[in-house]
Amino acid sequence: MRATVIHAPHDIRVEEVPDPVVQQPTDVVLRVLRACICGSDLWAYRGESARQPGQRIGHEFLGVVEEAGAEVTGLRPGDLVVAPFVWSDGICEYCAAGLQTSCPRGGFWGSVGSDGGQGEAVRVPFADGTLVKLPADAASDDRLLTALLALSDVLGTGHHAAVGAGVTRGTTVAVVGDGAVGLCGVLAAKRLGAERIIALGRHEARTDIARTFGATDVVAERGDAAVEAVRELTGGGAHAVIEAVGTEQSMRTAVGITRDGGAIGYVGVPHGSGTGLDLSVMFDRNISLRGGVAPVRAYIPELLPDVLDGSVDPSPVFDLSVGLDGVPAGYRAMDERTALKVLVKP
Amino acid sequence: MRATVIHAPHDIRVEEVPDPVVQQPTDVVLRVLRACICGSDLWAYRGESARQPGQRIGHEFLGVVEEAGAEVTGLRPGDLVVAPFVWSDGICEYCAAGLQTSCPRGGFWGSVGSDGGQGEAVRVPFADGTLVKLPADAASDDRLLTALLALSDVLGTGHHAAVGAGVTRGTTVAVVGDGAVGLCGVLAAKRLGAERIIALGRHEARTDIARTFGATDVVAERGDAAVEAVRELTGGGAHAVIEAVGTEQSMRTAVGITRDGGAIGYVGVPHGSGTGLDLSVMFDRNISLRGGVAPVRAYIPELLPDVLDGSVDPSPVFDLSVGLDGVPAGYRAMDERTALKVLVKP
Repeated sequence: MRATVIHAPHDIRVEEVPDPVVQQPTDVVLRVLRACICGSDLWAYRGESARQPGQRIGHEFLGVVEEAGAEVTGLRPGDLVVAPFVWSDGICEYCAAGLQTSCPRGGFWGSVGSDGGQGEAVRVPFADGTLVKLPADAASDDRLLTALLALSDVLGTGHHAAVGAGVTRGTTVAVVGDGAVGLCGVLAAKRLGAERIIALGRHEARTDIARTFGATDVVAERGDAAVEAVRELTGGGAHAVIEAVGTEQSMRTAVGITRDGGAIGYVGVPHGSGTGLDLSVMFDRNISLRGGVAPVRAYIPELLPDVLDGSVDPSPVFDLSVGLDGVPAGYRAMDERTALKVLVKP
Repeated sequence: MRATVIHAPHDIRVEEVPDPVVQQPTDVVLRVLRACICGSDLWAYRGESARQPGQRIGHEFLGVVEEAGAEVTGLRPGDLVVAPFVWSDGICEYCAAGLQTSCPRGGFWGSVGSDGGQGEAVRVPFADGTLVKLPADAASDDRLLTALLALSDVLGTGHHAAVGAGVTRGTTVAVVGDGAVGLCGVLAAKRLGAERIIALGRHEARTDIARTFGATDVVAERGDAAVEAVRELTGGGAHAVIEAVGTEQSMRTAVGITRDGGAIGYVGVPHGSGTGLDLSVMFDRNISLRGGVAPVRAYIPELLPDVLDGSVDPSPVFDLSVGLDGVPAGYRAMDERTALKVLVKP
């Protein structure tokens, strides 16, 4: 089959690789219908996260079960399923607690020796614990299929940030990061009942999506000016702040715009963001920090009905669609910020 | 009157200073019955927190109202009251939300131009918002008076840490720091229903108090060995961790012993602890960080009944009692760790 392989920074290729097969009785082989490129894939693309030459890449996908191992009880060939970005056994203490990202037998797609999502097929370990079944008729609805793909990462990650930030009915929220995760944070905050949602961003195509998703205000300033603008808009900061970037500057902004006693829900993979946390400031102002790698598997059952009935539609974050051959160009487009998030139809 | 004044690191003196008077109609003048020395006073004593020569010091005290300004409605001369370590107006949005430490008109005892608690009397701004009335007959009960003094800081701060760490009925808690705040964290965790409380410490007199306060286990190791011991005891870390020191090492230990998905309640004034926060580790393991300067004013109404009926008794943290003249020796004793917490009877 063909799959995306990363050889070195900026060297992403689509190549012939061995067909995946059921290796363990708890595996399934899944034919990929939709995959996509994540902002976090860019860390590897840019060489800021180390990869061994030849590693697969891509951790967001949905598709159809092609073959199921002997011990797989909940799935059978032909089932339409979505995969969260971490596989997990579904039976350990952490999985039971909804923290599948800490499953001792879990792992990340594209880690050494595992398949990545940006390919024709994937061997899925612990398929019963990992995959979530979707209604079969969704396969024929292109828009819906795209929206459902967001359950594999961005929508659940935005939701994790909103939960971490403490968003409930009536909350004022500010969102740092105008990428797909930040935008899904807006969507998740709206879904949780936020009354006011301030999106930070200056890229009009993105802030337009933010408004569609529920943002009530847009702040185009950056750095100290952004902090000042949000503090003025809110009379001292937002109770709930979503940090969806992971850099020192984004975290510094997040701390600056959080109201005393408020919380930052952070889901941007840390790339310097620890340095942006001034603990003395957070201490004096009782600012909480919650979040991390989102256990999206735990959130899919909660979010799925709203995606199916269309009340939550993250599909607008995908603004470029490519075939498998177009994946390298897709990385370039996201790296250059000419595309927000690239959909892959293998 | 006489009060404690800090002139330079390690230069603490008890001197004649002007008698406090009512300056604003919302002030009272309070005669101090009990004060004490805080672990955080040692940062100033050691020169690690800057002070101007001649600043007063001490932020924990209780006493009797001597004179009340014309606009003070809830207090009158003769009332026995306890002061939280921050004064606050009691009427702003932050005070209403229980975050009196962020009151825009609030301030810290001993800050430039204000009285400190380690003296004969104190001018209390915004007395109605700041002070909490105690039963008059407590004044004749020496043990109870000492226990009530803990409401001004250590008990409420320990409670804030326990709340931040997410302690509820049945929780497993680990406490980093065997000072008075850490010990009060044990007491607060026990009060909130923690099932298992692991105290980290190797000073037997302190760990004995921890056991009295409800610790079920004591870990005497430090650093990596402590992390290993707690992770083994708990099968992967404690859900709730109290960080009551504020150094890089203590925060590093706190992160290390927190279970994936758990929370650190931190109340140790940051002196390097930001460096001990490895955000990548916290991200991968979904560890939350909550806490900061404790709004003890908000907690006094909740904690007071339990202190009055003796079901919560923090008085054992005071292991040395001095008169006002003994305050400089008290600082030395705490600095050298020969005393845990020094009670001052002016």
